[in-house]
Amino acid sequence: MKYDVIVIGAGAAGMTAALYALRNGKTVLVLERESFGGQISNSPRVENFPSIKQISGSEFSDNLFNQIIDLGAEFELETVENIEKVGEGDFLVKTDYATHEGRSVVIAAGVKHRHFGLPREEELIGKGISFCALCDGAFYAGEEVVLVGDANTALQYALLLSNSCKKVKVMTLFDKFFADGALVKALRERENIEVTHEVSLVEFIADDELKGLVFKRKDGSTFNVETRALFVAIGQVPDNKVFANVVDLDKFGYIIADETCSTKTPGIYVAGDCRTKKVRQLTTACNDGAIAATNASIYIDTL
Amino acid sequence: MKYDVIVIGAGAAGMTAALYALRNGKTVLVLERESFGGQISNSPRVENFPSIKQISGSEFSDNLFNQIIDLGAEFELETVENIEKVGEGDFLVKTDYATHEGRSVVIAAGVKHRHFGLPREEELIGKGISFCALCDGAFYAGEEVVLVGDANTALQYALLLSNSCKKVKVMTLFDKFFADGALVKALRERENIEVTHEVSLVEFIADDELKGLVFKRKDGSTFNVETRALFVAIGQVPDNKVFANVVDLDKFGYIIADETCSTKTPGIYVAGDCRTKKVRQLTTACNDGAIAATNASIYIDTL
Repeated sequence: MKYDVIVIGAGAAGMTAALYALRNGKTVLVLERESFGGQISNSPRVENFPSIKQISGSEFSDNLFNQIIDLGAEFELETVENIEKVGEGDFLVKTDYATHEGRSVVIAAGVKHRHFGLPREEELIGKGISFCALCDGAFYAGEEVVLVGDANTALQYALLLSNSCKKVKVMTLFDKFFADGALVKALRERENIEVTHEVSLVEFIADDELKGLVFKRKDGSTFNVETRALFVAIGQVPDNKVFANVVDLDKFGYIIADETCSTKTPGIYVAGDCRTKKVRQLTTACNDGAIAATNASIYIDTL
Repeated sequence: MKYDVIVIGAGAAGMTAALYALRNGKTVLVLERESFGGQISNSPRVENFPSIKQISGSEFSDNLFNQIIDLGAEFELETVENIEKVGEGDFLVKTDYATHEGRSVVIAAGVKHRHFGLPREEELIGKGISFCALCDGAFYAGEEVVLVGDANTALQYALLLSNSCKKVKVMTLFDKFFADGALVKALRERENIEVTHEVSLVEFIADDELKGLVFKRKDGSTFNVETRALFVAIGQVPDNKVFANVVDLDKFGYIIADETCSTKTPGIYVAGDCRTKKVRQLTTACNDGAIAATNASIYIDTL
């Protein structure tokens, strides 16, 4: 079957693109390499989405997933390895399992967690290093844990962890937070959250599992923190290299596109965190999905 | 009191701007000349908003209004007559009732759809008359619908509608379309789109809901069309003249801004349908609100 729109990525941007394309009467295949929902699924509480007072990120994603499945979206857990433009309105999307044919493509591949790049880091993921407080916080209930990060996600993680952990030690690189005022205020009011600014992580102490961390101060001196758990929220990096034959990437690896969500290849659109933009929020991801799908629909209709 | 952010317009864009500013710890005054909610309030069913399967436009607006009031937004029913920049971080917003002082301003004044000016027109909006095929087209799947309009939006609507409707009767005032050739070509190729040129709508036939339309030909003769749905795409009219001293307007009267939602005046931002953009949807209005408020907050924080 040749789909009207193949959406790569089932986060908020990709699923909103699917929603709009389906509402335009298009057939849609959504490809996702991990699980649907994307980043927002890790947020325990979303309170800044218009008209929804409070919702968990996973509930938001569940709702949106059901919304598009009800409208007829097809969904496959596959990793995209290549997009090939055969001709106008004719694209091949190759995955680790199959090759799919589509009239247009929306890339909504999101971003990946940034790592520190320190020795032993990769092997300790899941053995003390976690990128998801919601997923792993409960494993350290009653313990002292460390969180590194200074933006909204980091603060949400800290607040969540402080509900169950004995103490949350928040470490930041600079002398302030880069987060919503409401989150900073909430953080300051928690007695079991301890904030240390202007420190950088330089070493992991571990045997088979994480046992502690070494931080460096601005003056070059270091100090050790004993802990079994490090939560990491230091930002994200795009992962768009497999698309580089059909779209232009900026020096950070984001897909170059303005608010029309159009790429250099007619018929291929981009939505959400993986494109060049300044504000990356749930609302802005949904915006991109709507625009990309609208333009994909116009592209198909005018073939 | 000097507010951090004065938001002009309480539609989806303006209220989302308020939401984001409030979550950033800013004080917010929202000014609205009619009633909160804006255009979306006219949509009986919204089914294209991510994670909300179905909601009425007015319920959506109620929720969002309560969300910002709970966070401390102040709201006044006043008509803005002028914005004056006194200095950086110092704006006077003059209304028909008062003069308000703010550190930044978000203009989210929306647009008005052009109406025919016919009897019963206003009461039938949402009861058969729709200004948005993308929003309401799916409600008439399998039916014969009428669309009036001759430019890009009208043709896009016709193509969209033809995907799900049995027939789309397109009526235009002049003897040709004023739209992209590709769209006209695509329209001509659809077997279920029927075009009638040189006719004008003169009367609505309705009980509680729309039942039909009366059109007049050039020779003065009339004919009736039975339908439950009239899609109107005869243009939109921005209403931004009172802001022309602080922002640039394009030739149609829209406030010139890219996706950063920044205007020529630092401290004044624009969000939603009143700015230059291509896709005007609920999700895209919310997007702008989030971005405008984020940038307004950064502007205030760096004063």
